[in-house]
Amino acid sequence: MTDRPSRDSYHMSTDDFRRHGYEVIDWVADYLDTVTDQPIMPSIEPGAIREMIPTTAPEQPEPFGNILGDLDRVVMPGITHWQSPGWFAYFPANTSPPSILGELVAAGLGVQGMLWSTSPAATEVEEAVADWLVDLLGLPPGWKTTGPGGGVIQMSASDSTHTALVVARERARGSADDMVVYASEQAHSSIEKGARVAGYGHVRLIPVDDRYAMRPDAFEEAVEADIAAGLTPVAVVSAIGTTATTAVDPVRTIGEIARFHGLWHHVDAAYAGTAMVCEEFRHFQDGLELVDSYTFNPHKWMFTNFDCSLFYVADRAPLIESLSILPPYLRNEASASGQVIDYRDWHVPLGRRFRALKLWFVLRSYGAEGIRHHVREHVALARSLADRITAHPMLEPVAPVPFGLVSFRHVGGNDPTRSLAGAINASGWAYVTPSTIDDMAFIRVSIGQTNTTAVEVDRLWNLIEEELSEVAGST
Amino acid sequence: MTDRPSRDSYHMSTDDFRRHGYEVIDWVADYLDTVTDQPIMPSIEPGAIREMIPTTAPEQPEPFGNILGDLDRVVMPGITHWQSPGWFAYFPANTSPPSILGELVAAGLGVQGMLWSTSPAATEVEEAVADWLVDLLGLPPGWKTTGPGGGVIQMSASDSTHTALVVARERARGSADDMVVYASEQAHSSIEKGARVAGYGHVRLIPVDDRYAMRPDAFEEAVEADIAAGLTPVAVVSAIGTTATTAVDPVRTIGEIARFHGLWHHVDAAYAGTAMVCEEFRHFQDGLELVDSYTFNPHKWMFTNFDCSLFYVADRAPLIESLSILPPYLRNEASASGQVIDYRDWHVPLGRRFRALKLWFVLRSYGAEGIRHHVREHVALARSLADRITAHPMLEPVAPVPFGLVSFRHVGGNDPTRSLAGAINASGWAYVTPSTIDDMAFIRVSIGQTNTTAVEVDRLWNLIEEELSEVAGST
Repeated sequence: MTDRPSRDSYHMSTDDFRRHGYEVIDWVADYLDTVTDQPIMPSIEPGAIREMIPTTAPEQPEPFGNILGDLDRVVMPGITHWQSPGWFAYFPANTSPPSILGELVAAGLGVQGMLWSTSPAATEVEEAVADWLVDLLGLPPGWKTTGPGGGVIQMSASDSTHTALVVARERARGSADDMVVYASEQAHSSIEKGARVAGYGHVRLIPVDDRYAMRPDAFEEAVEADIAAGLTPVAVVSAIGTTATTAVDPVRTIGEIARFHGLWHHVDAAYAGTAMVCEEFRHFQDGLELVDSYTFNPHKWMFTNFDCSLFYVADRAPLIESLSILPPYLRNEASASGQVIDYRDWHVPLGRRFRALKLWFVLRSYGAEGIRHHVREHVALARSLADRITAHPMLEPVAPVPFGLVSFRHVGGNDPTRSLAGAINASGWAYVTPSTIDDMAFIRVSIGQTNTTAVEVDRLWNLIEEELSEVAGST
Repeated sequence: MTDRPSRDSYHMSTDDFRRHGYEVIDWVADYLDTVTDQPIMPSIEPGAIREMIPTTAPEQPEPFGNILGDLDRVVMPGITHWQSPGWFAYFPANTSPPSILGELVAAGLGVQGMLWSTSPAATEVEEAVADWLVDLLGLPPGWKTTGPGGGVIQMSASDSTHTALVVARERARGSADDMVVYASEQAHSSIEKGARVAGYGHVRLIPVDDRYAMRPDAFEEAVEADIAAGLTPVAVVSAIGTTATTAVDPVRTIGEIARFHGLWHHVDAAYAGTAMVCEEFRHFQDGLELVDSYTFNPHKWMFTNFDCSLFYVADRAPLIESLSILPPYLRNEASASGQVIDYRDWHVPLGRRFRALKLWFVLRSYGAEGIRHHVREHVALARSLADRITAHPMLEPVAPVPFGLVSFRHVGGNDPTRSLAGAINASGWAYVTPSTIDDMAFIRVSIGQTNTTAVEVDRLWNLIEEELSEVAGST
């Protein structure tokens, strides 16, 4: 095949790692410095990136310089810039310098945190930061790992919600075919997906009120109708901050109904959970003591890069009972002693990396004060934008603005609303999500990217005003 | 509360990121250089790490120097050194310099790859490397994304297997309560866990032969008995390389039985899949054209840090049909055109980070030749150790050595076997997994850590020999 002598090792030496590591740090720093100038959405056709990649893997090792060069040549033309301060789409998926460095350390240590014994620090740092967040967010004290509950980092809110639905299903009696999960019509798609994946026979999407929050009377009626029909109501998911409009379901009332009928009550606060670092938002989570499980994502608004979804349970016993399988190769003294947490029993996957490290880095680098400062700044910017929208004769809000998301539309209806969204996105430097509720088109402006400030929000407003006056002038 | 003026921003500046980034690169490089000298297992009591962490998050930002200092002070005393070349426990969970740098870039870019449109390069690089691996491992060509099938990166083999079982369940008729999943008695715990999570009523663990491979006759009998009992056989999981002893199930025969009875056939090659880069191992995967889904983990033996589990399907239609939910905020032109892959429909979570980048970095940095070289070296080391064990009067192998795992015991039975494992692990620099099959204790020596060479294997053998002669001398 080849007459070259085989090398002893194909590993990059530590010296080369150090050198290339500096280069990559510089590359990332340059990216963060210049992302503002990039068109947020790449303008490429499907398949364009693949065309630049050879169809087979290289047979011989390539110099690292080639690989780094291909980042610019092949990858960057196909990157959507979630880290641009002009990112107003979806919800933010923030990263930040301390988070990036925490991820780097975790990749370097390369430990598996599946059991306490497979790297005690991975488990104990995770316990510690999960417990920190109970206090920081004003969650029920019993949710600490030092109490009957506890928190664990999962990949995404979809995983956390799916886990909750599995535990609820295991706790209930009977066949999953007859079991029902409830959530509002405005609940995130992950609830319907999680219920389907967990094998539930039925998902009921409950009507909402004029603020897009679940109607508890309609929820209770649905439960009673299902019971009368011989079905088994098993779980309800409340949202604190829906995806479409950040509506807040009445957690306490839903919790009371859930308790009365013996349903598992899971709360999806994936985005808005971060806001609870500020006491002034905590009235939105009133009733958490009537909740069985809860999820929020530091990887959205807490400057911690994906993946980092916190999942809390009020009582860890049914969770562990549902998910624990103990083969011989995983047995060890520490686990048998019952003195430690083995996080593999807290989610579907067995393996897990040291994700707590980046969250620990972020919470310490920002301090509680820093997180609060930036959350308040984002919410204030959202409210000021909402005020300008309300005052504008051609625009109207479609929902309240409890957090950092502004949902609005053109008073002229769906077509001008969609045109306006298209015009904003065509600007290149700003990106919003066009969405619909029922058949009403609207525009979601999510203000929460790590580096978004008044500069970008003012610029967005100017763009909107210009666009509206141009359209008005041209008709 | 405080009379200090609030800061404008609590973000670490890019200049500081650059400076601290170099420090962290140096920290990781120093770690990789010195990990050989660390005792692999930390000697700490449960709770010792937590005691060093304050019970509440800091109110004020902390300087990065404090955080980095606490890595050494707080974290390192609780780290189990999976990256030590003396790591012979479990299976490897390797990292490597190019992988660490790929993870760093992914954290810096911070893109969400849930849809093609949310970062086309994240999807297309993943398609490309998944397709590369089809050729590299000799998998069926139809498993490429350019064919009817396709590959996707999931977090772990547990997730991949769970996904396969969900798709199989959705494809089948009837109630999950009556559905049966089959795997061998030696199958990984993730199969039983995945089946439980997916709501299957029954898991049958099929007896194995004297090489710990599934007995296809026993599998077929079980299927027929279940059908006769009114149950619904739905899925079977074959292992190419079981966890206990890397036994290889007869994939072709199991596949024929599965086809005949209409079962979904999933293959768990989490560890051994990597070996298939070398043609001489591919006879172990004979029959893959009779397989519906397959998983292997580059984060085990392919020098790519966790998480990176490849999941392939022969036909992506039932996968996407089972997992697709399309809310308004996720609709977009590219998805509607059907021209692109939206990977959110290929697994339970919605969000996903750019994990393909590190795998791309690894495959290019090592080249196919480099991966083959190191796999062959590890397997050769395992065989040479197995030969020495076979030749030693006080030791005996308990299973064949098809890959890099050597399973053996002391001829004197369970007590001396456990003592020997304890003595090896007490050395500090080497770590093996004590395990059992039925009631037979044995020692697993997994040779595959990124930097393991003949030096460590010889040192391990000397340690074993010394220990045996000491024990012999003292009795």
